Amino acid sequence: MTNSSSPIKTLAIVGTGVIGAGWAARALSQGLDVKAYDPDPEGEEKLRAAIANAWPALERKGLAPGASPDRLAYASSVEAACDGADLVQENAPEREALKQDLLAAIDAAAKPEAIIASSTSGLLPTRLAAKLERPERLVVGHPFNPVYLLPLVEIVGGEKTSDATIARTKAIYKSIGMRPLHIKREIEGFVADRLMEALWREALWLVNDDVATTEEIDAAVVYGCGLRWSLMGTFLTFHLAGGEGGMRHMLHQFGPALKLPWTKLVAPELTGELIDKVAGGCEEQAAGRSIKALERRRDDFLIELLALVSKYWPEAEGRPNAI
Amino acid sequence: MTNSSSPIKTLAIVGTGVIGAGWAARALSQGLDVKAYDPDPEGEEKLRAAIANAWPALERKGLAPGASPDRLAYASSVEAACDGADLVQENAPEREALKQDLLAAIDAAAKPEAIIASSTSGLLPTRLAAKLERPERLVVGHPFNPVYLLPLVEIVGGEKTSDATIARTKAIYKSIGMRPLHIKREIEGFVADRLMEALWREALWLVNDDVATTEEIDAAVVYGCGLRWSLMGTFLTFHLAGGEGGMRHMLHQFGPALKLPWTKLVAPELTGELIDKVAGGCEEQAAGRSIKALERRRDDFLIELLALVSKYWPEAEGRPNAI
Repeated sequence: MTNSSSPIKTLAIVGTGVIGAGWAARALSQGLDVKAYDPDPEGEEKLRAAIANAWPALERKGLAPGASPDRLAYASSVEAACDGADLVQENAPEREALKQDLLAAIDAAAKPEAIIASSTSGLLPTRLAAKLERPERLVVGHPFNPVYLLPLVEIVGGEKTSDATIARTKAIYKSIGMRPLHIKREIEGFVADRLMEALWREALWLVNDDVATTEEIDAAVVYGCGLRWSLMGTFLTFHLAGGEGGMRHMLHQFGPALKLPWTKLVAPELTGELIDKVAGGCEEQAAGRSIKALERRRDDFLIELLALVSKYWPEAEGRPNAI
Repeated sequence: MTNSSSPIKTLAIVGTGVIGAGWAARALSQGLDVKAYDPDPEGEEKLRAAIANAWPALERKGLAPGASPDRLAYASSVEAACDGADLVQENAPEREALKQDLLAAIDAAAKPEAIIASSTSGLLPTRLAAKLERPERLVVGHPFNPVYLLPLVEIVGGEKTSDATIARTKAIYKSIGMRPLHIKREIEGFVADRLMEALWREALWLVNDDVATTEEIDAAVVYGCGLRWSLMGTFLTFHLAGGEGGMRHMLHQFGPALKLPWTKLVAPELTGELIDKVAGGCEEQAAGRSIKALERRRDDFLIELLALVSKYWPEAEGRPNAI
């Protein structure tokens, strides 16, 4: 999915860890200019390495005309990165006070018409905008790893975010091949992470209580519901499980199970023992393969999966207004 | 994945709703004889229609030599269905007392060396075996819809289930193209449904509280985590999200978020209003397409996805002992 008529020319990335680097790679592959900054002294080196690692996958997926990793300019300060950018994407650690100050600095440095988007996975935009002169242009744009391949991005506005900011952010993300999902109510964790977090808590309990290993729990997802969820989410999946009666029959038949004690209600304590079980389990699953090697395997798969699944997405069925 | 050397010849299906019919279609496509019974007076007609609906997908996936829907014999009683079967798969409604009595009747009718497997999605095998003469041959074999395509099946033994029963059930399911996952601790909801139930409760709350529609929540899964979960489960996915530091870094960075109120703790009340929102939302998503049409679209996708994903499964990487 390439696009040479993006409504913007330059994206600034502030914070270039896994998520920031993913944004940079996506934007570069779509033919944008990218300016980036991170306080890490090795930030530039790490960022260029991360982009180089993602690039072969992006080439297979298809680059926009003129796209090049050379269109990355690494800046020496937040202010220099923001200078001239049409959208500034912030990807700092998930600490509210840190983000509030950083976003205020971005607000002071960015041109007045620029959008400021935070990649936060759960902090509230109203609170993030607390110190901004122009809070109407602050929005959450929460992406998913790997950002350069996964299309979902949650857009969440705060109390002062303008409708124009929401609309423009949506258009910008669409132009770089993403599927923006506007979450209309501001709520901690937004939608996708709340769903993942619920599953994650239960998964941690199952490891904690020695019901299953991390590998067994992953297998339960990969060979079962994970296969269904890349086409249909949980609701439409259950709509089909209800047979001809659909979701109404399903709720009637399985609704009472909601009362069963099938989930642990609070998160388990992350004891050293649990951390060892979880991290040790993952290291065993990795079976000596490096994170980089696992990433390349995941990317190879995602490139093929995206080509496959896009044949089944709403627009392929003539339903362009579906999400 | 076809197999002409199954360790069994005849599978009996007791209860032929969505799940039972799925078992029948899978077994027939793998070249087995299937005997089936359901108390529904229209049971045979519905079962043959369900198999006919699944058959084109199974043909594309690949039939075992000699496989034919004609090898289905519809029986007039539980006893007649069980007669001569090597494995009896029970798929009655999720009511413990009903299943206990039915499984006792199956136990009395089936030949002594036959395995008796329950498709229950969460009831405990020790309790299901309460009235059996031969409880050592009772096991849970919990599949996932559509049973004729999804490979996952959870195997759970009760207190009296023999190791030989577990081993033989595993071998039988493998021979019909499934990925058996032996859950070593007997726990309500087993593993996969506990994970799905946790996500499902949170999804119901999000609809209940008007944070998002069913279509928006499905989109948050389909375009995001659902894409990752058909290759890697939640643990290995987060292992990669941690960058070079892997899961240990991830737990360090995001562990504290477990304490945030990102999930609602108890299930919402299934009020008429919530049922209308959820079922109405699904009906809108269906956009006039029938359940049958949606099933065919899902099956077309799953056939392609299974071909794709199997290129990435452990055996393709030379790790035959992984799950």
